[in-house]
Amino acid sequence: MKFVCSKEAILTEIIYSMDFTSQRNSLSITSNVYLETYNDTLIIRATDQKLGFSTHIAVQTLKEGKTTVFCEKLLNILRSLPDTNVEFTVVDGMFTIKPVSQNIDFKLRTITPEEFPPLETAPEGRYFSVPQKAFSDMANQTMFAISEDETRYFLCGLYLERNASGMNMVATDGRRLSIVERTFEEELPMFTPVIIAPKFFTELKKLSTDEGTLELCITDQLLFAKIAQRTFYTTLIKGQYPNYRRVIPDSQNYSCTMRIQDMLDALKRVSLLVENKAKRIFLDISEAGVLLTSDESEVGEAKEIIPCQYEGPDSKVSLNYTYLLNPLKAMEGEYFSINFTEPTKAMTVKSESNRDYYHIIMPMQPNS
Amino acid sequence: MKFVCSKEAILTEIIYSMDFTSQRNSLSITSNVYLETYNDTLIIRATDQKLGFSTHIAVQTLKEGKTTVFCEKLLNILRSLPDTNVEFTVVDGMFTIKPVSQNIDFKLRTITPEEFPPLETAPEGRYFSVPQKAFSDMANQTMFAISEDETRYFLCGLYLERNASGMNMVATDGRRLSIVERTFEEELPMFTPVIIAPKFFTELKKLSTDEGTLELCITDQLLFAKIAQRTFYTTLIKGQYPNYRRVIPDSQNYSCTMRIQDMLDALKRVSLLVENKAKRIFLDISEAGVLLTSDESEVGEAKEIIPCQYEGPDSKVSLNYTYLLNPLKAMEGEYFSINFTEPTKAMTVKSESNRDYYHIIMPMQPNS
Repeated sequence: MKFVCSKEAILTEIIYSMDFTSQRNSLSITSNVYLETYNDTLIIRATDQKLGFSTHIAVQTLKEGKTTVFCEKLLNILRSLPDTNVEFTVVDGMFTIKPVSQNIDFKLRTITPEEFPPLETAPEGRYFSVPQKAFSDMANQTMFAISEDETRYFLCGLYLERNASGMNMVATDGRRLSIVERTFEEELPMFTPVIIAPKFFTELKKLSTDEGTLELCITDQLLFAKIAQRTFYTTLIKGQYPNYRRVIPDSQNYSCTMRIQDMLDALKRVSLLVENKAKRIFLDISEAGVLLTSDESEVGEAKEIIPCQYEGPDSKVSLNYTYLLNPLKAMEGEYFSINFTEPTKAMTVKSESNRDYYHIIMPMQPNS
Repeated sequence: MKFVCSKEAILTEIIYSMDFTSQRNSLSITSNVYLETYNDTLIIRATDQKLGFSTHIAVQTLKEGKTTVFCEKLLNILRSLPDTNVEFTVVDGMFTIKPVSQNIDFKLRTITPEEFPPLETAPEGRYFSVPQKAFSDMANQTMFAISEDETRYFLCGLYLERNASGMNMVATDGRRLSIVERTFEEELPMFTPVIIAPKFFTELKKLSTDEGTLELCITDQLLFAKIAQRTFYTTLIKGQYPNYRRVIPDSQNYSCTMRIQDMLDALKRVSLLVENKAKRIFLDISEAGVLLTSDESEVGEAKEIIPCQYEGPDSKVSLNYTYLLNPLKAMEGEYFSINFTEPTKAMTVKSESNRDYYHIIMPMQPNS
C-alpha cells in the first residue's frame, strides 16, 4: 500500500475518525482506524462497535492496499507535521509516514485489516432528507434534559418520533422534560419512534456544516446519518420510552414573563451560593418582580430581584436552578415565561416568541 | 465597616489575593481574605502561612472596620457582578455585597479578624532594587530544572546567590542543571545565598508588569518582594544547596550547532513516539546532521534529521528529551549548541548568541 495526499486532507478526516474509535489502547483493533485505497480514493473507517464512521478523500495511489493503524498516534503525528504532501507506505507490517522532501520518518505498527469489524450499512434507498440546521437545533433545545441515570437506560437518550408533518424530539430525566415539535416542508417517511444516544448528536454537531440537508436512515437497530462524503451511525437504545404526554399540563392558570438575559444573569449570581448537591433556589413570584434566593448555607446567602409581568397571587417556587438555566441558555428570543397553576405542580417554561419548543419542570416540595 | 469602591478595583486585588490563600474550606481562616479600612484606603491581606500578600486600594469609607471573608466566594461573586460601584457592609457578622442601584444582595459569613494570622514584615530599609524583567527572565531560564523530588527538598527551589556584580540563579534536579549568571548596573547589597520555592516565581510572574524595578528584601527566613502597592513574601527553603560548580565542565572538546526552531520542531514530533516513562531519545551527531530517533516501542518509531554545524567524531547520545526541550523553549536567539567531550558525560547546552545562561545535561547510559 502506498499513497500520497496533502496533510490537511487526511488530518481533517482522522480528527473526525478519532471520536468513533474506542481509544482503549494501541493493541485493540477498535482503537485503530481502517485505511484502504481504491483507485485514487482513500477509504477511512472507524468504529467502537456502537458507533461507526466512514469517509473518503482523493489521494494519489501508487500501490493499492489496506491496513489499520492506532488512530490516536496517527492523529498526533499528522498534527505535528509541516503543511506539505505526505507519502504513506506499508512495508513489513509498518505504516510509514514521510512528508515529501523532509527528513522526517514515522513508522507505526499495524494490525491486519481482516481483524477490523465490518461497519453496518444502511439498506438501499432508505435515506430521507431533513434540514441540517433545523435537526441540530432541535437537539440543542432538548439534549440537556437527557437522564444520566444508567439504571433507567431508556431515558439516557433523545426520543425521536414522527408527528403529523415533521418530527418531535423529547428528553426527560423524570423531573423535567424538554420537547420540540417541528414541522418540515418536505414530507418525511413514516418511522417507528427511536431512542438515540447523546453521543450521536455530539458527533453530528462536529460534522454538521449547518447548511443544506442531512440524510437520515432509521432501521430497527440503527440510525444512520450522511453529510457529503461522511456517513456515521449509532446503535439505537432499546426499551420502552414512557408516555411523556401524560406529564404535559393541558393549561396553566398563571403566567410570569421575564427577560431571558435578566434571569440568566441572576441565576449565574445566585447559584454561586446554592449548595452543590440540591442546587435549590427559590423564586418568589409577585406582581412587583421575581425574587431569587439561595438557601442560607455555611458560606452565606444571595438575593436578587428581576422585573416581570405577572398578574396573580404571590407564589413561592423552589427548584433545581439548572432546570431553568439549561433551557434558557439555548432559548431564542428576548422574553420567556414561567406558566403554572400551583407552585408545587409542574410548570411550563417557554420562549414568548412562540417557538415550537417548551420545557416542563417539576418544582421541589417546599420542605424537601 | 462600610465602604464603596468600583467592582474592577477590588476584583483585581482579590484575584491576586486568591493565590495566597490556602483555599482549604470556607471555615479555615487562611481560606479567608483580610479586609480593613483605614481612612479612605482598603487594606487587603492573604496568607497560607508560607506565603503572604498585602495590598491596598482607594475606597470611599463610610464606616471604619475590619473583617475576613472566604476569598474564593468573594472572588466568584465579584466576577459575576455588573461593572458598577459596589457597597460593602458588615452587619451582624455578615459581609454584605450590594452593587449600587441594583437589586442584587449577597451576604457572606465572616470570621473575626482577630483570628487572622499576622503577616511577616520586612525589616526597615532593607529593600534593594532589581530590574523587574531581568529578574523574571532569570527565573524563566532556570525554573524548569527545579527538582520535584520532595525527599531532596533543598533541590525543590531556585538557588539565588550574589556574584561579583549581580546575581546567579541555579536550579537542578541532580540529572540536569540550569544557571544564569547575570550582571546588574546598580550595585546590590551582599546577601547569604537562599533557596526559593517555585510558587514565589509563579506569583511574581502574575504580579510583574515587566517594567521598572522590583524591590527585594532577603532575611534569614524570608524573601519579600514589592511591586507598587503590592507586597508579597515566601518562607525560604532551609537546607544546604549542593556545590553545583563541581558538575559544570571546564571545557568541552566538541560543539554541534543547530537552529533552535529546527530542534524544537523535531523534538515535538519524535517525542510523540517516545515512551512516557523514560522519555528517552537518541541523537546521532555527525557532520552530515543530527539524527533524532525514538526507542522502538509497541506503537512504532520516529526518525528525523536536522542540519547542523559540527566537526568531530560521529557520536551517539541518549537523553531524556525534556532536558533539551525545556531550555530550548525558553532560549533566546536563533542558534544553540550542544557541547561535549564524551557522549556519556555531562553536556553543555547554550544559546549561540552569547547569553548569560546555560544548561548542563547528564546523558543516559547507553544500556540503561
